[in-house]
Amino acid sequence: MIVTLLTDFGTADYFVGAMKGVILGNRPHVPVVDITHEIPPQDIHTAAFTLLAVYRTFPAGTIHVAVVDPGVGSVRRPILVHAGGQFFVGPDNGLFSYIFDRETDARVYHLTNARFFRQPVSTTFHGRDIFAPVAGALAASVAPSELGSEVSDPVRFAPLQVERVDEHTLQGAILHVDHFGNCITNFAQEDLPEEVLARGFRLVVNGHEIRSLCRYFAEEGAAADELFAIWGSAGFLEVAANRDSAAQRLGAARGQPVTVHLE
Amino acid sequence: MIVTLLTDFGTADYFVGAMKGVILGNRPHVPVVDITHEIPPQDIHTAAFTLLAVYRTFPAGTIHVAVVDPGVGSVRRPILVHAGGQFFVGPDNGLFSYIFDRETDARVYHLTNARFFRQPVSTTFHGRDIFAPVAGALAASVAPSELGSEVSDPVRFAPLQVERVDEHTLQGAILHVDHFGNCITNFAQEDLPEEVLARGFRLVVNGHEIRSLCRYFAEEGAAADELFAIWGSAGFLEVAANRDSAAQRLGAARGQPVTVHLE
Amino acid sequence: MIVTLLTDFGTADYFVGAMKGVILGNRPHVPVVDITHEIPPQDIHTAAFTLLAVYRTFPAGTIHVAVVDPGVGSVRRPILVHAGGQFFVGPDNGLFSYIFDRETDARVYHLTNARFFRQPVSTTFHGRDIFAPVAGALAASVAPSELGSEVSDPVRFAPLQVERVDEHTLQGAILHVDHFGNCITNFAQEDLPEEVLARGFRLVVNGHEIRSLCRYFAEEGAAADELFAIWGSAGFLEVAANRDSAAQRLGAARGQPVTVHLE
Repeated sequence: MIVTLLTDFGTADYFVGAMKGVILGNRPHVPVVDITHEIPPQDIHTAAFTLLAVYRTFPAGTIHVAVVDPGVGSVRRPILVHAGGQFFVGPDNGLFSYIFDRETDARVYHLTNARFFRQPVSTTFHGRDIFAPVAGALAASVAPSELGSEVSDPVRFAPLQVERVDEHTLQGAILHVDHFGNCITNFAQEDLPEEVLARGFRLVVNGHEIRSLCRYFAEEGAAADELFAIWGSAGFLEVAANRDSAAQRLGAARGQPVTVHLE
Repeated sequence: MIVTLLTDFGTADYFVGAMKGVILGNRPHVPVVDITHEIPPQDIHTAAFTLLAVYRTFPAGTIHVAVVDPGVGSVRRPILVHAGGQFFVGPDNGLFSYIFDRETDARVYHLTNARFFRQPVSTTFHGRDIFAPVAGALAASVAPSELGSEVSDPVRFAPLQVERVDEHTLQGAILHVDHFGNCITNFAQEDLPEEVLARGFRLVVNGHEIRSLCRYFAEEGAAADELFAIWGSAGFLEVAANRDSAAQRLGAARGQPVTVHLE
Repeated sequence: MIVTLLTDFGTADYFVGAMKGVILGNRPHVPVVDITHEIPPQDIHTAAFTLLAVYRTFPAGTIHVAVVDPGVGSVRRPILVHAGGQFFVGPDNGLFSYIFDRETDARVYHLTNARFFRQPVSTTFHGRDIFAPVAGALAASVAPSELGSEVSDPVRFAPLQVERVDEHTLQGAILHVDHFGNCITNFAQEDLPEEVLARGFRLVVNGHEIRSLCRYFAEEGAAADELFAIWGSAGFLEVAANRDSAAQRLGAARGQPVTVHLE
């Protein structure tokens, strides 16, 4: 079994180390993998997208601990999701929305069995006191049903799908800007089949128009300074530039609308 | 056994990788956990605080390697501390001060047995050449007394405790500003018992006055833009703001004085 | 066996996590060590230097995966290098140049056996789809010859050696500026033997002249604000300042020429 961590804690403080201390204190030989700790503070949507993009690269049984938790200590529930053969542990605030959209077998448990928590449970750091020890318990093969009782109403965001405005127009948005400045949209391949794009398209974002689709970043057809669309590694259409930041060139940020006009 | 690393090396260079190469070269299956490598360069106090905040989340026998070492290569001693059932390895420059304050059973060893060092020992990177191989030796169950001889005069900073100015006034300081902008002070719960705070208080920092104590960050009583005090996860009083940086709001930084006036 | 990762992916996205998911999916108990993910985007030279500086601190059999890959998806070859008892996996774009310079037994394989790739192979993320699964295969003791066929013409950069201008003058460059602002040059100890430096030297970089050689950073002879030369932990001469950034003081950056005039 593998445990992954995804938080907005940054890496300058003791927070991530404390979670690992608790997990390894339970199970010294479980591999603990950092997905990222640089989710912008309290940005649950970016965390949900990042989890979606990565979870299927992990083997069955992996335990993903995600802690972006502005409501820590309040009434928001701590939950465990068992879906697609993997486990997801964190606050019930929408973090697991896109897992629910993709895995139809999801079962959700409200974590109430304090026997598996680190005592005393603080009101400000459930990553250390609830989510990490629960991950340790799962890694030790404790059954979900021992950790709490099943619930059916987890918080869910609107699905990522694009809107069909008319026969030739689709309306989406930028989900994420990555380290290289590539702008990841919510257009999936089923929205834009190959033969449809081949007939020609205009993608419009922040007043810029993009008309070419490249297969890879350094494609020779693309001019050095041209912006282009490309199918990215998370399965979504991205706007990119060869060896340059498309986000900077576009003046674009997460949430910005993206329109695709088809021929 | 677990090895942790705490340094000011940053993560852009090969320094941390080199330490792990040496440790895993000795003991390929020991889990190595990064606490942080983003201690501000040469800031021994922040490193000492971070170690204090995290070490008790790790199980007995854990080996904490801390390298914030402006005096590397000079006469400052490399030491091993055995305290509270855990090990601490690093330079003798005050890094372990708060461990000494909290664990009364500390024994300190001057690391002199070069047989356990990586040869040749450089004058600029004892993290790789002395501290990592000593951690590897400890993980292989080498006894502290084999690594050097006991000493009784390690460098110690003044304890973190606050000063009682008069019956109603306590004087402390900001120990650390975390990733979220929360300002962690050196007021501990024994300085400010619940019933005393309940009678009313004024906490003054950088000309700002704080009068409310919240139990969690998103507490409904707190106005969205209000600064408040909160007991933090390291056991100290913090000044915080809901979904905002208290440090920015206060214009506050590490070291700044904090006064608490009690009713 | 140990796997290391060296990329320009940053740590804010899911990229590094995805590679680890693939490796651990193959071999759940292989230790995976991050060298760094903060290579400046597409900066193959800095990646090549960092790999050179660190690989010998790892034990025989270590598998180093290096992905700085502006040509991903294009005709550039994915390769495996077996050299000095270690493995190196990544794109054939010069990344392994300095390993070739130092290890004369290098054998290079063009990774063509798609049976060991993650399917479907994307055109934008070979770190996840080719290099990580190949590392997993190597960790599972698959022989290099099963992964592809040997080639003899990998891309190589010019060696790092300095140029001898005349009997008293050597011309080099800054290879890297580290986290502390130390400027690492390509002068090696064989270029500047101890007895030659002892007769006196002038090192000139960006109009500044440095005449003193220190053995360690906090050396008492050195004035607090003096720049000095020092033999660094990667085996090269560095320009440094005690508790200060030499790069900032010099206005220097990677690539800048460094001249040494000997007496």
